[in-house]
Amino acid sequence: MSNEVSRRDFLNLIAALGGSSALIQAGTALGLMPGAAQAAEFNMPVGSGNGKSAVILGAGISGLCAAYELMKAGYQVTVLEASHRAGGRVMTVRHGDLIDEIGNRQYCEFDDEPHMYFNAGAARIPSTHKHVLDYCEELGVELEVFINENKSAYFQDDNMLGGKPIRNGEFSTHVRGFLAELFAKNFDEAELSQSFSRSEMETLIGVVRSFGDLDAQMKYSGSLRAGYAKGGFLEHGTPKEVIALKELVQGRFMREALTANEGETGPILMQPVGGMDMIIKGFLRPLGDRVQYRAMVRSVQVGNDRVSVAYEQNGERHNIEADYCFNCIPSHLMTGIPNNFPSDYLEAMSYIRRGEAYKAAFQAKTRFWEKEGIYGGISWINAPIRQVWYPPHGIHKAKGVVLAAYDYGGGMYFTNMSQEERLEAALAQGEKIHPNYRQQVEKGITIAWHRMNHMLGCSARWPRDFSTGWTHHEENLYHRLQQSVNGRHYFIGDQVSQHSAWQESAILSTHWALRDMLGQQQNQALNSQVSGTVAG
Amino acid sequence: MSNEVSRRDFLNLIAALGGSSALIQAGTALGLMPGAAQAAEFNMPVGSGNGKSAVILGAGISGLCAAYELMKAGYQVTVLEASHRAGGRVMTVRHGDLIDEIGNRQYCEFDDEPHMYFNAGAARIPSTHKHVLDYCEELGVELEVFINENKSAYFQDDNMLGGKPIRNGEFSTHVRGFLAELFAKNFDEAELSQSFSRSEMETLIGVVRSFGDLDAQMKYSGSLRAGYAKGGFLEHGTPKEVIALKELVQGRFMREALTANEGETGPILMQPVGGMDMIIKGFLRPLGDRVQYRAMVRSVQVGNDRVSVAYEQNGERHNIEADYCFNCIPSHLMTGIPNNFPSDYLEAMSYIRRGEAYKAAFQAKTRFWEKEGIYGGISWINAPIRQVWYPPHGIHKAKGVVLAAYDYGGGMYFTNMSQEERLEAALAQGEKIHPNYRQQVEKGITIAWHRMNHMLGCSARWPRDFSTGWTHHEENLYHRLQQSVNGRHYFIGDQVSQHSAWQESAILSTHWALRDMLGQQQNQALNSQVSGTVAG
Repeated sequence: MSNEVSRRDFLNLIAALGGSSALIQAGTALGLMPGAAQAAEFNMPVGSGNGKSAVILGAGISGLCAAYELMKAGYQVTVLEASHRAGGRVMTVRHGDLIDEIGNRQYCEFDDEPHMYFNAGAARIPSTHKHVLDYCEELGVELEVFINENKSAYFQDDNMLGGKPIRNGEFSTHVRGFLAELFAKNFDEAELSQSFSRSEMETLIGVVRSFGDLDAQMKYSGSLRAGYAKGGFLEHGTPKEVIALKELVQGRFMREALTANEGETGPILMQPVGGMDMIIKGFLRPLGDRVQYRAMVRSVQVGNDRVSVAYEQNGERHNIEADYCFNCIPSHLMTGIPNNFPSDYLEAMSYIRRGEAYKAAFQAKTRFWEKEGIYGGISWINAPIRQVWYPPHGIHKAKGVVLAAYDYGGGMYFTNMSQEERLEAALAQGEKIHPNYRQQVEKGITIAWHRMNHMLGCSARWPRDFSTGWTHHEENLYHRLQQSVNGRHYFIGDQVSQHSAWQESAILSTHWALRDMLGQQQNQALNSQVSGTVAG
Repeated sequence: MSNEVSRRDFLNLIAALGGSSALIQAGTALGLMPGAAQAAEFNMPVGSGNGKSAVILGAGISGLCAAYELMKAGYQVTVLEASHRAGGRVMTVRHGDLIDEIGNRQYCEFDDEPHMYFNAGAARIPSTHKHVLDYCEELGVELEVFINENKSAYFQDDNMLGGKPIRNGEFSTHVRGFLAELFAKNFDEAELSQSFSRSEMETLIGVVRSFGDLDAQMKYSGSLRAGYAKGGFLEHGTPKEVIALKELVQGRFMREALTANEGETGPILMQPVGGMDMIIKGFLRPLGDRVQYRAMVRSVQVGNDRVSVAYEQNGERHNIEADYCFNCIPSHLMTGIPNNFPSDYLEAMSYIRRGEAYKAAFQAKTRFWEKEGIYGGISWINAPIRQVWYPPHGIHKAKGVVLAAYDYGGGMYFTNMSQEERLEAALAQGEKIHPNYRQQVEKGITIAWHRMNHMLGCSARWPRDFSTGWTHHEENLYHRLQQSVNGRHYFIGDQVSQHSAWQESAILSTHWALRDMLGQQQNQALNSQVSGTVAG
């Protein structure tokens, strides 16, 4: 028997792949292009909050956004934040900063320079995230371009090329070439010609040829797109040797090579100059001392007209009453705080799980990646560290900060390691890409978001089964949680969105809540006006 | 008879496309990835020029690079530049600057702010252009990321979608989807299975599916990668309606959509902060008054030991003698200046033709593109202006400068227009992409490089027939011109490279010449040492 696969086998194969591929589709389809139908500009009526008060629980970006908009509208605003800092999962780590991971508190020892920072949480702003960008503009947060995909960065997989790293551009050029050749060979001209004219077919064939940089016989025999073996300027470039598809397919990066530029990270990406928390600082400037730190919420009681919040600060218990409460405390922590929420509201909160995410970073003694022609972007490795990020800012300065691990898969690989073990693992895996990595980096820091004090988890996770998407039950729970309690308490944050882990979702959850509050206020005003008219 | 195309027709079609596709291949294959075998670091021995002199003709980047390296090595250096400015085709236009186009002199009226500039010539530095980047580092030229491809920018073609512009990301997602579907349908599993195991085939199928974002039946039925019709954050995103391949194929941008990220502009691109001529200013700082402006060369005579150059400045004729001459005067102008070059050297110079290139720019009253979610990048239009570039710098500032036309095809469409006609054409074509473009832009400037004073042409063009590449004759001419005259006169610039129109080539031509000079000096020293030994 040959290892030939029949058409039936082939179709079965496709069907069988449905499950895992649906997962991929869900993953890559999360992002994207500027929507035609984005929500209209959000503005609270000026003075509409005069004489009213609001308490905001949590100084994550949704909470700060709520506080800022309410303050502008005239509300008396208090923000209670449990930790020593604002920003939640928007966190930039610099010289002297504390990473308050339970069981692994660290102080950052990077050099004290503006470009020597590490965005330990949010790190990219897609240009399609209009509301984040609008706040950057309004708050005077300067932006610069972030680099995600870089053809000069590497793919490394022990199963491919004997573990030798290969430049993204070389790898993806060969993949494109061989796929185009396969496609060209199997184009069914008879079928095509039923739909397309000769000139349209010429265009299609030209596109395939151009996609793969095929030769005139529609064969892939190497391409200068993969890089010059030699020459290229004074003398003609000589193409690098072709690597067989059979070899390329052994690694796990074929999909990445063809889709890195798609999805949420496909649009232009930006970062604030000096660190992602410049957005947090932008919100904090006008809010001033309205933000209380190390204020642990102990009770939330929602009445018909007011919300009463008890909290502890400096060992003392305080009570605050306000007309409204906007709450971005992580759901799994909020359910443990005494409250009088309705049971369906609590059920929804309890349903949300949290992702685990782990990052590590090093200070690099020199910008060794630039000497290798890498300016920003990501190297991918088939190992627990998954990625190495090179900073797109501070080009040609003496030093820089590299992201040394980004495990967003929820694995516990790094979590239970000691700090020394974590750093050693990052070095051992990183030097598969950069042989003298170990000599080049120092002062490593790590962060396991699921162990961070006052957070104990990363992004909210709603659907239990990503391959099938949201169930009807999940939709119901979500929409219940989005609604208020008595028009007085709103749950906010990316946890109250169907696309978590992005600042845009957190901000939009706040806008939704504020809009709903305004709508309810208007209804009440209308009702009392009607009653007044009747009474008069 | 149906319009069915037979396999023979199909193969003929591919063969027939060979000519034009080879052209495309030549065009896309010009760039690329970091070469493993780049030339070693270039360093002139310190003090090696003490007591020696050099005259440099032309203050283009190759000339300035030569002057800088020679000066560092101890040479007495003079640079003669015909125009009022240094930089040649590295030219940044700002408030008050003169564009010295013959018959169309203009002064730039942009607002006088650091980010309000227009790179009228060189505008992008690929991260693979190591030597340009090295000089930026050495000369303290600050770099930032440049954006080329932007999925939020537009494609517009009157022949497609009734002329309605479409976002790059929407267009290219549909193209990828339909191509992947076609490919999947025609995959020959029997053939594949001869080379690939079942698990390898699974990977390949998964790659195709992922490439096109196909559904479980390997059909393209739309993708969120094309953008949200609505939702996307608080609610699930709804995909945009699919546009039929039959419609997409009517435009001329299918290739661009799939290959914009390949070739010379595929690597990370950078630009100096504040304008490309920051590199020129970087070279000029240490050179000081060694650069003479408005100095028109009238004669170049190469002797055995010296070079004698006559030039005119302020109406007076001067003569300068030097040990060496490095000459980056455009070849077609140099052949018109009295000289005593050997005939084969002159033949090579005369052979080089020049490209035509035309650019236009406007000051924009607001950064209207950012309101459309476009942060940097290029919109493509099937019209003579070809491209609109949005600045990647100055994000969210009040104004910006847009490139309003870039006709690099050598057409004469804009050349013979009056300035008013040129600007009107840019407006009329640009408003096909941005309906209120005309109201948004002002203070247009234009530049036809082939009419620029002291240049009269853009990049060098060596091969007469791009589809067949360089002929043997052309190779011979090129290598003759690269050689010196008497070891005393070197012709430099991107015109003495096989990859013109890039600063990297210009710099490498200078390095080649300096290395050759050093080699000849060493040989002479060795010879005279030997003679000395014999005489002794």
